[in-house]
Amino acid sequence: MEKSSSSASLGPDGLNIAQSFFKPIQHTSPQSSNNRITKISVIGAGNVGMAIAQTILTQDIANVIALVDAKPEKLRGEMLDLQHAAAFLPRTQILASVDYAITADSDLCIVTAGARQISGESRLNLLQRNLSMYKDIIPPLAKYSPDSILLIVSNPVDVLTYVAWKLSGFPANRVIGSGTNLDSSRFRFLIADHLDVNAQDVQAYIVGEHGDSSVALWSSISVGGVPVLSFLEKQQIVYEKETLENIHKAVIESAYEVISLKGYTSWAIGYSVANLARTLLRDQRKIHPVSILATGFYGIDDGDVFLSLPAQLGRGGVIGITTVHLTDEEAQRLRDSAKTISEVQSQLGI
Amino acid sequence: MEKSSSSASLGPDGLNIAQSFFKPIQHTSPQSSNNRITKISVIGAGNVGMAIAQTILTQDIANVIALVDAKPEKLRGEMLDLQHAAAFLPRTQILASVDYAITADSDLCIVTAGARQISGESRLNLLQRNLSMYKDIIPPLAKYSPDSILLIVSNPVDVLTYVAWKLSGFPANRVIGSGTNLDSSRFRFLIADHLDVNAQDVQAYIVGEHGDSSVALWSSISVGGVPVLSFLEKQQIVYEKETLENIHKAVIESAYEVISLKGYTSWAIGYSVANLARTLLRDQRKIHPVSILATGFYGIDDGDVFLSLPAQLGRGGVIGITTVHLTDEEAQRLRDSAKTISEVQSQLGI
Amino acid sequence: MEKSSSSASLGPDGLNIAQSFFKPIQHTSPQSSNNRITKISVIGAGNVGMAIAQTILTQDIANVIALVDAKPEKLRGEMLDLQHAAAFLPRTQILASVDYAITADSDLCIVTAGARQISGESRLNLLQRNLSMYKDIIPPLAKYSPDSILLIVSNPVDVLTYVAWKLSGFPANRVIGSGTNLDSSRFRFLIADHLDVNAQDVQAYIVGEHGDSSVALWSSISVGGVPVLSFLEKQQIVYEKETLENIHKAVIESAYEVISLKGYTSWAIGYSVANLARTLLRDQRKIHPVSILATGFYGIDDGDVFLSLPAQLGRGGVIGITTVHLTDEEAQRLRDSAKTISEVQSQLGI
Amino acid sequence: MEKSSSSASLGPDGLNIAQSFFKPIQHTSPQSSNNRITKISVIGAGNVGMAIAQTILTQDIANVIALVDAKPEKLRGEMLDLQHAAAFLPRTQILASVDYAITADSDLCIVTAGARQISGESRLNLLQRNLSMYKDIIPPLAKYSPDSILLIVSNPVDVLTYVAWKLSGFPANRVIGSGTNLDSSRFRFLIADHLDVNAQDVQAYIVGEHGDSSVALWSSISVGGVPVLSFLEKQQIVYEKETLENIHKAVIESAYEVISLKGYTSWAIGYSVANLARTLLRDQRKIHPVSILATGFYGIDDGDVFLSLPAQLGRGGVIGITTVHLTDEEAQRLRDSAKTISEVQSQLGI
Repeated sequence: MEKSSSSASLGPDGLNIAQSFFKPIQHTSPQSSNNRITKISVIGAGNVGMAIAQTILTQDIANVIALVDAKPEKLRGEMLDLQHAAAFLPRTQILASVDYAITADSDLCIVTAGARQISGESRLNLLQRNLSMYKDIIPPLAKYSPDSILLIVSNPVDVLTYVAWKLSGFPANRVIGSGTNLDSSRFRFLIADHLDVNAQDVQAYIVGEHGDSSVALWSSISVGGVPVLSFLEKQQIVYEKETLENIHKAVIESAYEVISLKGYTSWAIGYSVANLARTLLRDQRKIHPVSILATGFYGIDDGDVFLSLPAQLGRGGVIGITTVHLTDEEAQRLRDSAKTISEVQSQLGI
Repeated sequence: MEKSSSSASLGPDGLNIAQSFFKPIQHTSPQSSNNRITKISVIGAGNVGMAIAQTILTQDIANVIALVDAKPEKLRGEMLDLQHAAAFLPRTQILASVDYAITADSDLCIVTAGARQISGESRLNLLQRNLSMYKDIIPPLAKYSPDSILLIVSNPVDVLTYVAWKLSGFPANRVIGSGTNLDSSRFRFLIADHLDVNAQDVQAYIVGEHGDSSVALWSSISVGGVPVLSFLEKQQIVYEKETLENIHKAVIESAYEVISLKGYTSWAIGYSVANLARTLLRDQRKIHPVSILATGFYGIDDGDVFLSLPAQLGRGGVIGITTVHLTDEEAQRLRDSAKTISEVQSQLGI
Repeated sequence: MEKSSSSASLGPDGLNIAQSFFKPIQHTSPQSSNNRITKISVIGAGNVGMAIAQTILTQDIANVIALVDAKPEKLRGEMLDLQHAAAFLPRTQILASVDYAITADSDLCIVTAGARQISGESRLNLLQRNLSMYKDIIPPLAKYSPDSILLIVSNPVDVLTYVAWKLSGFPANRVIGSGTNLDSSRFRFLIADHLDVNAQDVQAYIVGEHGDSSVALWSSISVGGVPVLSFLEKQQIVYEKETLENIHKAVIESAYEVISLKGYTSWAIGYSVANLARTLLRDQRKIHPVSILATGFYGIDDGDVFLSLPAQLGRGGVIGITTVHLTDEEAQRLRDSAKTISEVQSQLGI
Repeated sequence: MEKSSSSASLGPDGLNIAQSFFKPIQHTSPQSSNNRITKISVIGAGNVGMAIAQTILTQDIANVIALVDAKPEKLRGEMLDLQHAAAFLPRTQILASVDYAITADSDLCIVTAGARQISGESRLNLLQRNLSMYKDIIPPLAKYSPDSILLIVSNPVDVLTYVAWKLSGFPANRVIGSGTNLDSSRFRFLIADHLDVNAQDVQAYIVGEHGDSSVALWSSISVGGVPVLSFLEKQQIVYEKETLENIHKAVIESAYEVISLKGYTSWAIGYSVANLARTLLRDQRKIHPVSILATGFYGIDDGDVFLSLPAQLGRGGVIGITTVHLTDEEAQRLRDSAKTISEVQSQLGI
């Protein structure tokens, strides 16, 4: 599939205007100019992948967006639908193909493809099928873009980020899972909604395993620069433990709730991943809770495990990990998650 | 359905932090401050409506977005999915309800709701069903936001814009159909793709009836400020009539092609309508080909008919119509479309 | 002075194209449409006022920007210089006049005009001259835009915000001084620079009197959601008091340093005030340290005094004050500043 | 001069927090990551250079901005003033030094430095002094950033772009003068103002020599996609030659008028050059009238001459020249300008 079939369909006379309209004064060598152009590949053109691609397009983060999926019709439909908006947007080249060759020289590869759970299927069996898909996805990505950053969105994200790391052979700082970045955003929204403030004024992290066993860092919550817990203590206000735990529960249930209501999640994960893409490619050096190689932190020693921790991200991928203070209980929950994940990974045979 | 159920679910203690955290120094009266806040309502939370709402949200065009649909679960799922991204976006309040009361005091109401064609159904029967839906939609919108602009996206857009105008009782300058704004964008993309230029450097209009009988204004095509047809004449280049007509054909087939490939169109119409919303609400006074009351232009005299013509849009809606020069053939095709539409309208009994 | 003299200079034939080019289909009544257009007036077209106006223009915050200054030539030069960029920007109307009538119906009035200190002049004498200028500025602003928000930038900002409040007769929630918003930004930059993180990940406030006696809230500093002081305590790291105090000293000296190096400050105050304008007019409900009526907070009881405290701002002006915990020493310094300011104000005879 | 003296002044304990706060997990090699970071150098920190740098910063076009000037104090003042706004902006590193080493590996170098005319000085003498300055500027820029694009803003821009081309040894497609890009924007604004439309809907070019002998391309004027001249002919409206020529005269006088009123021009040239920077670095492939090597176009054969023609620009610099149709008179005026410029250049001894 080409960039667009329109030119091709115009017949042999198709280039007359173009040829006469411009006098080219150079033939830029693709290699040299491509070196300086920002290219993002999105693998998987489902609801999540397309929400990510469209948000990246709207926010003008890349010069080239390459879409890869196994379904050529769906893929071409999505490509055309984005291209038709060209007059309303800064110029971005949209490529789409079932062939990974179009991802060549990407700065960032975002993987959203994943198998869906079959009724009655065990979690391990699902993972095995995902592993099998990743064996088809990651090696060609790594081959065509050996210097790229891999950003994994498919679930279970922590294990699949590990899988992508192993299959790519990339250094750990260039393999990142979207992890609890979206959970943290939901957490911030619910706190902001509760206090009627702007969610951007709320700092709050959820870390650890993406999903039910995630860990909310109560001590990290600050609103408008005011650490909430110590504020409450100093004002001698009874600790609203129940309120905060209800908010954390609401975060965990969010994804399930949205899926039960509309059938899938798309917009929020789209914004979340576009936000990570901006931080990475524009070298923003901002701190995001994302799934990174967590071995050695907080006593995690069960082999190589990816879990979400607040990480500083930039053009080179992960720059550093913030050494947040955890309570003993919080650290223990991280270690428990690490152990569970490690055991699952050992069964994968990778 | 409320803005969010999160606060409600936190129990009687829910306001403790909020109450202690801020000392309010005023109680803004909602009426006065609302007068100055930009609010957009989107009716219909399907693929088109949601692509519009999400693009408006990303582009920071409104302070409040209100979603109305007949399906409360879908609606709540979409609202939550947008709200969860709050930490990544400027603050925008997202409302959703089956009740039109939430649209009160909108600056702009965008209607995407519409009936789907049943296999074997006549076009007139479909229109009757859409008319019936519009009788439930337009009067409450007009009642709750008597000063708003109505932007109609549902198809057949020209007839339904007329219907919305009649049902609302609004002056014609405040009732606009998205019309050929998207067709023109596709036209510009295909020309730009053919010439390898930026689509924003291409000026080109498709006017008239949205759909198969639309009229491409060849004389309006300019690329980087160069009128293409007179350029070709002056350079004594053989007029690439076939090339241009193939491009127009490709435009007409675009929507069908995307629908056959991915099942529906969404992104491009989302950008197109968000672009119109920006021009209208930010008073940009830009010229867009949109469906407006065309009676009296180019000899159209078959009663009140809405057709797309290049119109200057601003905060007050339609400011003026550009008096583009049409060839006799082009003007005749506009009149033919007007006549067909007028006949259809006469059968609607409105 | 009019919007532009260009039309006027084109002679009696000047409207031929315009008249024939558009067929107007409505005459929007200015009152109704103006109600919905965002207008910002900037008083004082010096380096500070122009940096503010230009940043607001670039960031697309207003539909109309009105510039008022006592020097008509300078004013017209600045207006033309901004207008000449129209093709590169969203449409924004730029007005300029020595007559306050052009500010009518502003949503926000930003006052940067102020007298310059004459060598050997006492501080009180300078203030008397500024008071005299404000008597010419504030009443016409309040008359032409009775519902606007006043944002005071001239120095000494805390006293002049009080003066503007008294002269305008506005409720206190609609009179705000830029206060320590910029000091806090400098504080955040220096901490971010020290830690090599993104300044947007640093939360840190300077409050109190804008200038040498400002108060740095050490306990408010959090980086990437991690409260720095409690982090240091928990990690049993020696409190870097000297480092932090050097950073605060550097903040206080910043303005002097920039003025000694380039002769004035402009860019940073431009961004700072544009940022406040966005929060206010787009109803962002974000928390900013700005000069507000502080009487009753932290034991301040010396009459009506404006000092910077973290305030939640929105479309209606000040929505609430964050009840930050201050140490006894910090609170005492606020009260000392309040007392000094109150004494100065009592000498002004207003 | 370093990035900032703040860290340095904090003493030996300065790194304690930083060291403990992050655990770095990689040491990105500067070379590899720099390859992918967008860097712009601005030479000359006067009103023009700073308006350019500040607009580029606001519009988030570069990751690194390097300022070079001969005056270290002014330079440091401007750097600090921009840095102090860090909390309000996406992260951009601001460097400043008298040493060209800080420009290393720039993607784009913008030269605004130039000598000021001394009263009674001949034009040729001024040029000689500018040539002398350029001999100090261009070779180090070319040495430190051999793959960069040079964008010349100093006047007389056409001759100095030629000088930069010769001194750099760069291929012609990577040496561009800002030329008539701003003149064309002023032209578009004045036409838009005359017709009360959005300047972005006006296409109109001024080409040729930047300054009094520039050529307005009447046939290029289109408004909202309607070619104005042929529209007037078809509507049998008397050609408003005088109106249009008055607009062109107003464009030529614009710069003089702004300088006489405010002492210099800054904002419009800032937006104009930032706009070019975006087209170049984001590979927008848009058409801009800029000064490029014009030999061989329209019969220009007086050696190597740079003049403004509508050129398509992208990541590789100049991609092609639009072959606009010129009248015989217009082409002759271009050739006359070329001859004059060529004669001046022959006297420069370069």
